[in-house]
Amino acid sequence: MSRRVTGTEIERMIQLLAKLPGLGPRSARRAALYLISNREKTMAPLATALAEAYEKVSICSACGNVDTINPCTLCNDPRRDQGMICVVEEAGDLWALERASATTGLYHVLGGTLSAIEGIRPEDINIDKLVERAGASQVNEVVIAVNATIDGQTTAHYITEQLKGCNVKVSRLAHGVPVGGELDYLDEGTLAAAIKARRPF
Amino acid sequence: MSRRVTGTEIERMIQLLAKLPGLGPRSARRAALYLISNREKTMAPLATALAEAYEKVSICSACGNVDTINPCTLCNDPRRDQGMICVVEEAGDLWALERASATTGLYHVLGGTLSAIEGIRPEDINIDKLVERAGASQVNEVVIAVNATIDGQTTAHYITEQLKGCNVKVSRLAHGVPVGGELDYLDEGTLAAAIKARRPF
Repeated sequence: MSRRVTGTEIERMIQLLAKLPGLGPRSARRAALYLISNREKTMAPLATALAEAYEKVSICSACGNVDTINPCTLCNDPRRDQGMICVVEEAGDLWALERASATTGLYHVLGGTLSAIEGIRPEDINIDKLVERAGASQVNEVVIAVNATIDGQTTAHYITEQLKGCNVKVSRLAHGVPVGGELDYLDEGTLAAAIKARRPF
Repeated sequence: MSRRVTGTEIERMIQLLAKLPGLGPRSARRAALYLISNREKTMAPLATALAEAYEKVSICSACGNVDTINPCTLCNDPRRDQGMICVVEEAGDLWALERASATTGLYHVLGGTLSAIEGIRPEDINIDKLVERAGASQVNEVVIAVNATIDGQTTAHYITEQLKGCNVKVSRLAHGVPVGGELDYLDEGTLAAAIKARRPF
């Protein structure tokens, strides 16, 4: 704000809310006003939830997922298929696949991709641990579910090379037309991939 | 989330973030991931800021503004013009006027508008206190800066009636074309008001 209109604590709260993705300065102010009008129902519980999450959040030592328990909720779940590991870049990708109920297997979160430009090398991301996990006798398939970007695909190729010594099938996500997508709006790469990978009706 | 993927504390944080205006379930998850990746720089300070704001926020006993001190920062500021009171519906409107540096006077926050439908009567909003303040000898103008809605205008008329006994000028915000606005996109009411209130060039 151009002039001082409110106490330090409220201004600080607005500044921090404005850092969240999806909130700018204006919506952070609206969020702050909402919190002030809902002190007991939202503000206090959110303060507590943040403090507790801050206290407890850790990286799963098995798969690299973020959680408040270690090993994480998914690694701890005996109903998950222990024979399949789905490799993702970030915890957000894991959450997206879980929302889609896309796999019942385990996950492995790399925490990034290889990048020549940003100088991210294999030892900077969680690859060694993946090779170690893939070597276990119960694992029979690794699905590489990284983003379809240049860095993502470079990482996928590198991981495939590293997994050659392990006795596992390595697969990747299918490319094609998104469900509900209109051909007219899709890029040439996707359309070419969709034709190439066409399936019998 | 359809299936349990993460610990209770993270899920609770996402649920609460999703309640904020401007954030839905998807952006709340993104915000949560951002907070988890920025534990020290954002998550911990935000938890503290929320807890402190929760502890200290109060309604200014003079003007009805929300602040962490009472009387509020604006009522405490001796440089503000003590002769003018700008009446607004909510603290957010006060913040908007302050961002625009629209007035150097004091404010009065009603905390709502009269509403026949929602059953909000004069005694439910902060009007009596306004009449009391407007009666003070140093006050010479009350600007009614409520929203240009039916309820807002009803409230403005009611307040004008109540202030008849006080020795103050009562004014309202000008109607007209928003700065940067295009005539073609404006409603008839605004255009008619802008012509009626036309000013010499």
